[in-house]
Amino acid sequence: MKPTVFVPAHITGFFEVVRADDPLRTGSRGAGVVLDRGVETSIKVRGSEDKTVVRVNGKKENGESVSLRSLEILREITGFREGVSIHHRVDVPIGCGFGASAACALGSVLAVVRELELPVTVNTAGSVAHKAEVELGTGLGDLIAEMTGGIVIRTREGPPGYGRTDRITDRGLYVLTETLGELDTASVIRDETKVGEINRMGAGMIRRLLREPTPRMFMELSREFATGTSLITPELREPLEALSEGTLGASMAMLGNTVFALSEDPDAGGDDVYGIDFSGARFL
Amino acid sequence: MKPTVFVPAHITGFFEVVRADDPLRTGSRGAGVVLDRGVETSIKVRGSEDKTVVRVNGKKENGESVSLRSLEILREITGFREGVSIHHRVDVPIGCGFGASAACALGSVLAVVRELELPVTVNTAGSVAHKAEVELGTGLGDLIAEMTGGIVIRTREGPPGYGRTDRITDRGLYVLTETLGELDTASVIRDETKVGEINRMGAGMIRRLLREPTPRMFMELSREFATGTSLITPELREPLEALSEGTLGASMAMLGNTVFALSEDPDAGGDDVYGIDFSGARFL
Repeated sequence: MKPTVFVPAHITGFFEVVRADDPLRTGSRGAGVVLDRGVETSIKVRGSEDKTVVRVNGKKENGESVSLRSLEILREITGFREGVSIHHRVDVPIGCGFGASAACALGSVLAVVRELELPVTVNTAGSVAHKAEVELGTGLGDLIAEMTGGIVIRTREGPPGYGRTDRITDRGLYVLTETLGELDTASVIRDETKVGEINRMGAGMIRRLLREPTPRMFMELSREFATGTSLITPELREPLEALSEGTLGASMAMLGNTVFALSEDPDAGGDDVYGIDFSGARFL
Repeated sequence: MKPTVFVPAHITGFFEVVRADDPLRTGSRGAGVVLDRGVETSIKVRGSEDKTVVRVNGKKENGESVSLRSLEILREITGFREGVSIHHRVDVPIGCGFGASAACALGSVLAVVRELELPVTVNTAGSVAHKAEVELGTGLGDLIAEMTGGIVIRTREGPPGYGRTDRITDRGLYVLTETLGELDTASVIRDETKVGEINRMGAGMIRRLLREPTPRMFMELSREFATGTSLITPELREPLEALSEGTLGASMAMLGNTVFALSEDPDAGGDDVYGIDFSGARFL
């Protein structure tokens, strides 16, 4: 079993939530940065109608899993019958605002489509994974960003084919992060009061970023968003101040107990340092 | 002067032309394949208001140039005043249906935006290059494909941000080519009779490819298109038959005096062999 799909991780800086009855018209607009590490997904086909099994860094996943749900949706669409053994090698913190769930979901779908030669385009594969994310509340906008790469502006919500992205022209920057623990995305994006605050703060930020599409402005808006929504937890305030020194600015990863900064200097702080991936999800 | 931007080459298999008064609503729909070789563009800023100079593989370009026109449009939008020396290292045949003009135009714009830190997003950079292509008649659809990577289906015409793309999920295939010489794109896409034939044949092919999104179907439709439009020149018929053996099918590169085939075997024929690039245009 060799790695077949790489999906880079993604940190959102600011966003607004768009809900519709159709999960394929549901998602978020906003902006974030795609990292040069993420999730490598490899699969093994297990023969007809075997059970599907998902492992994350070797450990079997039980219960609700976005990878499993993605494959169920793919099965409904294409009628494939084989059982599949999925292995995710996740190279970023899980549940901490790195978009790992979207990367797992997308990796699973693309790997199965490729391996079983299912008649499914890349956008359709993305839609399947997006639908699973929306259903389980694990994410709203990481997926299309992870398919795009770069410092991504999501100008319209939704999966690829409906959603729209643009990018800031840049290179040579590093993403510095410090993670203090997990944060349950679903508990925030299903909280109406919080979503109200998010949407009040997030509205208009894309327009401001498009007017001055620079990494510095992206960080400035992200910081304004984190502070204004009161999503930022007290424990993040100190690392956030520390990481603001000698960088283009620091803010909170949406949604995770993580601070991140963009910097020309990889040694300017933080526990982890990443490059920016400009290519997006791909077969290895 | 070091390479700063890589834009992969692109071969179109079939297409239809969409014209509007606005060049940003003009383009083509269709499908093609993005190659792992293309154009590397590096630039040198020459100080205020110097003349812009374009070199292709070391040779100075005179007269009408899509790179020069792209930079004029960029200058109108952003007001930058510096003269720029552009160098394109083109690693594919020029004027032979490899989308080299789009790759040069896009590479020029992205390199200048990056180097002068102009407040321009990647989509806007793409729009500028697309506009120059449409104005000069050098291409209609290569640009957005080259920004996407893969076996690209262009479901809506136009530059990134307006145009839409999808992709066939595949890897491990090679693109085999044989080039017999140049063909002037503008002379075809400005010929109303030919455009009529192209649009009659191309209409409906995207829908057929989306119904069965496989490399083999892409080649089948491309062949049907090349034959049906009578764009194929007599001299291409023999290499086309030869290249059909042992491959997923062969057809003519639109628009160039080139035959191409997709194959699992890199040694199945042709003069040149390429991999498929799945990442699209990027900074090096």
